[in-house]
Amino acid sequence: MINIAVLGAGRIGKIHSASVAANPKARLVAVADPFAEAAEAVAKAFGAEAMTDAMATIARPDVEAVVIGTPTDTHVGLMLKAIELGKAVLCEKPIDLDMGKSESAAADVERLGGNVMLAFNRRFDSTFAEMHRSIQAGRIGEVRQVIISSRDPGMPPAAYVKSSGGIFRDMTIHDLDMARWLLGEEPVSVTAVGSRLVDPELLKPYDDYDTVMVVLRTASGKQAHINNCREAVYGYDQRVEVLGATGMLTQDNLRPTTMRITTAEATDAREPLLNFFLERYAQAYRAEMDAFIDAIDGNTPMPTTVRDGVLALRLAECAVESARTGRTVTV
Amino acid sequence: MINIAVLGAGRIGKIHSASVAANPKARLVAVADPFAEAAEAVAKAFGAEAMTDAMATIARPDVEAVVIGTPTDTHVGLMLKAIELGKAVLCEKPIDLDMGKSESAAADVERLGGNVMLAFNRRFDSTFAEMHRSIQAGRIGEVRQVIISSRDPGMPPAAYVKSSGGIFRDMTIHDLDMARWLLGEEPVSVTAVGSRLVDPELLKPYDDYDTVMVVLRTASGKQAHINNCREAVYGYDQRVEVLGATGMLTQDNLRPTTMRITTAEATDAREPLLNFFLERYAQAYRAEMDAFIDAIDGNTPMPTTVRDGVLALRLAECAVESARTGRTVTV
Amino acid sequence: MINIAVLGAGRIGKIHSASVAANPKARLVAVADPFAEAAEAVAKAFGAEAMTDAMATIARPDVEAVVIGTPTDTHVGLMLKAIELGKAVLCEKPIDLDMGKSESAAADVERLGGNVMLAFNRRFDSTFAEMHRSIQAGRIGEVRQVIISSRDPGMPPAAYVKSSGGIFRDMTIHDLDMARWLLGEEPVSVTAVGSRLVDPELLKPYDDYDTVMVVLRTASGKQAHINNCREAVYGYDQRVEVLGATGMLTQDNLRPTTMRITTAEATDAREPLLNFFLERYAQAYRAEMDAFIDAIDGNTPMPTTVRDGVLALRLAECAVESARTGRTVTV
Amino acid sequence: MINIAVLGAGRIGKIHSASVAANPKARLVAVADPFAEAAEAVAKAFGAEAMTDAMATIARPDVEAVVIGTPTDTHVGLMLKAIELGKAVLCEKPIDLDMGKSESAAADVERLGGNVMLAFNRRFDSTFAEMHRSIQAGRIGEVRQVIISSRDPGMPPAAYVKSSGGIFRDMTIHDLDMARWLLGEEPVSVTAVGSRLVDPELLKPYDDYDTVMVVLRTASGKQAHINNCREAVYGYDQRVEVLGATGMLTQDNLRPTTMRITTAEATDAREPLLNFFLERYAQAYRAEMDAFIDAIDGNTPMPTTVRDGVLALRLAECAVESARTGRTVTV
Repeated sequence: MINIAVLGAGRIGKIHSASVAANPKARLVAVADPFAEAAEAVAKAFGAEAMTDAMATIARPDVEAVVIGTPTDTHVGLMLKAIELGKAVLCEKPIDLDMGKSESAAADVERLGGNVMLAFNRRFDSTFAEMHRSIQAGRIGEVRQVIISSRDPGMPPAAYVKSSGGIFRDMTIHDLDMARWLLGEEPVSVTAVGSRLVDPELLKPYDDYDTVMVVLRTASGKQAHINNCREAVYGYDQRVEVLGATGMLTQDNLRPTTMRITTAEATDAREPLLNFFLERYAQAYRAEMDAFIDAIDGNTPMPTTVRDGVLALRLAECAVESARTGRTVTV
Repeated sequence: MINIAVLGAGRIGKIHSASVAANPKARLVAVADPFAEAAEAVAKAFGAEAMTDAMATIARPDVEAVVIGTPTDTHVGLMLKAIELGKAVLCEKPIDLDMGKSESAAADVERLGGNVMLAFNRRFDSTFAEMHRSIQAGRIGEVRQVIISSRDPGMPPAAYVKSSGGIFRDMTIHDLDMARWLLGEEPVSVTAVGSRLVDPELLKPYDDYDTVMVVLRTASGKQAHINNCREAVYGYDQRVEVLGATGMLTQDNLRPTTMRITTAEATDAREPLLNFFLERYAQAYRAEMDAFIDAIDGNTPMPTTVRDGVLALRLAECAVESARTGRTVTV
Repeated sequence: MINIAVLGAGRIGKIHSASVAANPKARLVAVADPFAEAAEAVAKAFGAEAMTDAMATIARPDVEAVVIGTPTDTHVGLMLKAIELGKAVLCEKPIDLDMGKSESAAADVERLGGNVMLAFNRRFDSTFAEMHRSIQAGRIGEVRQVIISSRDPGMPPAAYVKSSGGIFRDMTIHDLDMARWLLGEEPVSVTAVGSRLVDPELLKPYDDYDTVMVVLRTASGKQAHINNCREAVYGYDQRVEVLGATGMLTQDNLRPTTMRITTAEATDAREPLLNFFLERYAQAYRAEMDAFIDAIDGNTPMPTTVRDGVLALRLAECAVESARTGRTVTV
Repeated sequence: MINIAVLGAGRIGKIHSASVAANPKARLVAVADPFAEAAEAVAKAFGAEAMTDAMATIARPDVEAVVIGTPTDTHVGLMLKAIELGKAVLCEKPIDLDMGKSESAAADVERLGGNVMLAFNRRFDSTFAEMHRSIQAGRIGEVRQVIISSRDPGMPPAAYVKSSGGIFRDMTIHDLDMARWLLGEEPVSVTAVGSRLVDPELLKPYDDYDTVMVVLRTASGKQAHINNCREAVYGYDQRVEVLGATGMLTQDNLRPTTMRITTAEATDAREPLLNFFLERYAQAYRAEMDAFIDAIDGNTPMPTTVRDGVLALRLAECAVESARTGRTVTV
């Protein structure tokens, strides 16, 4: 049994706590949050101890691994502390909103030989994972083009927009990681365009966008396209397509059920999409935690690393620059 | 060039005339209808001569083949006349509403060696034909179950109901032929139930139904289910499924386009189905005529025969009896 | 917290134990099985006490409700014992393979006011439940026809066939319940045909079938069709369609993922279906347990009852008779 | 009846001739081609006169309108001649491979008030036309993003590549027109990347690509993405998606039939796509001709113009430059 503490008792901390509790190889020993009540609530629900001090939680001798689900600006500090004490780490993305700090943290982790997994949850979605396996297995030959459509159900609140780092760093970054993973090669150039079509007034002060398109190109010429919009009235839209030399992979969005209704007005109509990431990626969050625990248990390399986090963030930075300058940016 | 005359200038006569005109191996020489104006209109549209006397049209020395699209009670007389004069015949179904007269006509045709094709248009639909070919090619192994859903967009007019011979003889008969064709074996038993759910008042006087289910069984135990309803608000519903020992075939209904609309209320909604048989089977009517002309041209057997008409009608008669008596009827 | 014991530590007992353990309103206090090792394994996995004597387990003062997942011939005895002691019961179907014994047990339960839910798991599948809700909400008007396709991935072992009671009592019974539930009216007549197409040698000695079709009719004329086959090479096929006066409901089978592969040979190909009921109805089993616990907790009527079990079994008996006699059987 | 001559008896000339012949408002009077045999064959098939001199054909007093399906470098000369003689023109795209010559021709046509329709066949595809109508009707609100996937079944022959003008001018141009049409606004910037993944050796000498991605942006910020590949092993892939403020439109590719096959290996597999544009757009070619004839007949403006041709070509030129320079190009 691997003893795990979850740092942060917010929305994502609760999900990670449940995943730890459900995994037969792990025990949730503690849940830490400066808001004692939040920590209590989550800890109690899963039979763990509530803590308010994250550093003290990491330092507990009975804690072998920590899951970092705290605010972004605390990620690096907690991660490095845990590494120093020899604990395995599953850290929510991003490492940090600042590129320099992220690179430096990644370098530190690598120098110290830290056992850190960065939480790119989408890679653990059963469908996307099967697409990746199918590519690796050669079912569609060499990858040529990856098309990613990724749209949120609605604009985030103003407070979120203010501190998000902008759509490329906050939203597109998931798709940039997905593109890297499916292309199987590092992109060498990034081209991006951005528009304010949903809520121009909210976004203009931050020079941010709500509707963007990105094109990536690898050294061998493989291409990826990403389109994002902060608002899709029909729900959280998450689609990926991969064209290879001998075939193509596609997939469908998920709905609450598979029911279709046919009436005089329309036929085969399906329900709206699952509304947002917690619902859409419920299975992926569990599989992500299972992969983290399996890597510790089997003493195998983490499936995703801080390096992945740095590389995705660098692509996001390139997209920001490309959208601003109207030039293709070399990574 | 095969010279063809079309008898009957109604809805179906017009379609057959167009199909003859479009076939490069055939020439439409005459269109006959007692209503001179109707005959004129169709004849003119396709560059043929208008006639009012069907028998005289058959007798024309320049007519090699006739297409019978006249009222049902004239089918047998015209067909036998044409055979007598050595003309090939494409005859609309049914041969006759009366079982005895149909059997006797079929026997006459066979005795005289008449070259007659009965117009089971659905067999020429590109999708159903591909399903049949796939079965023949062994793509799903031995057939086990055939499921046919076939529903009209709305109740026919009262006058039609009065003379249609009832839902089994008028509507189910198409599905009985489809079942025979896809099963690849003759059904030996028929079980049917009927209800009046759409318009009981209209149907009760005729002891007719608007909603029926039929189960067929062949000697080797293959099974077919048919469900019919006179009213499907979403359009003309035509679906077939075949379960075999090593696979299953299914197909979709057709819509005007492949567009799907996704909104806050529903996702992937498609358009209503094509409304009725003339639209749904437009391609099948052309392919049926092409098959008729090819059989004459190549001197090969007709793809469907009066015998098929008799066998389908016999199954319909069994269904009528089964629905009335509540017993499985042996064919 | 409601204290629950699970009787039977086999495949289904394990699933029910996990569902109890996962429900925040309930506590799994004991798991009983005459095979001590099986009881131990399941009990340990979910933090409960292992027992070997079912009757003693029911009698425990700390047990408020029992889940009966033992062999069929023990159902009635355990159920009545639990009722006598005032415990709520979730009992696996069937009540008993014998119609008389089932009726008598149901009468006893009703006379004693027993709080018993019969485990018709499919009603708790999210898609089928949404279809039922949509019908109730009037989204497709009055129901006219229900079409149920239900096929197993492969023949059960010979030992199972011997004691199953035959395909109608063992397999069709689930669909008969589904038909009753979706029709919203009791069927008054049953017509069935059966064939031996998959493994005639195995089945002939038991006068059993592997491929059947059933037609049901209610007093008002609503109809349902069921087709079953013991073998579908593509997986566990579970489909339902409901035609109403103003629309139609359909749904899709489930696959492991939503991935589609498109190659030179075929386009949009999906994965084989989930192989069997434990995978296909994983969500339904959890929802079924949640409904049981909610009914106890809220002191509301059980969503399914022993009466449902009797009525489904009676329809199965009628199907057996109809297939044997070739007559429509009045319920 | 409008008298029409078709210039060019190649693949596209044959299709246009058939469309004219099938239109009840028009008569095909002549088919012209310098290869007399080709002209004869097409003319004979549709009951028209064969000619070898295109200019003489245009000049025939009995010709009211001409369809130009000759090699690209003859388009401008024939078009201007026809205008001079007051004949309506349906001209295959492109106007010319040279931007300057195209602009000048368009200016001439406009100055002379020529009644010219440029043959953007895809706009007449029933599905794309329905999508455009749905946008116009406000069914998805203001357009935000258009995603176009357009892939050929295989590399064109070397000779074609040599004279095609490159993938952007030859293949992407259709999608650029589609994007303009669906966006409902002129793009003001173009970003493109190109790769040689299918046949680098063939393309390198021409500095041409086989795999490209393009991003367009309008003044108000609407965006369009186009992806092209010269080779898709599964057939001719033609997909369009439009995201609007209140909904999304998508559509499916076409297959020969709607059949799906389900086996132990895969479920719901469909047939490969229709192989290439003549099959895929058969309906669109007919509808395009009908629109041309209707515009002449009703004396209404042509649905597409030489200006559309110039604007699409200009976007293609921008894409060429963007792919070469790695900069977003302002139109």
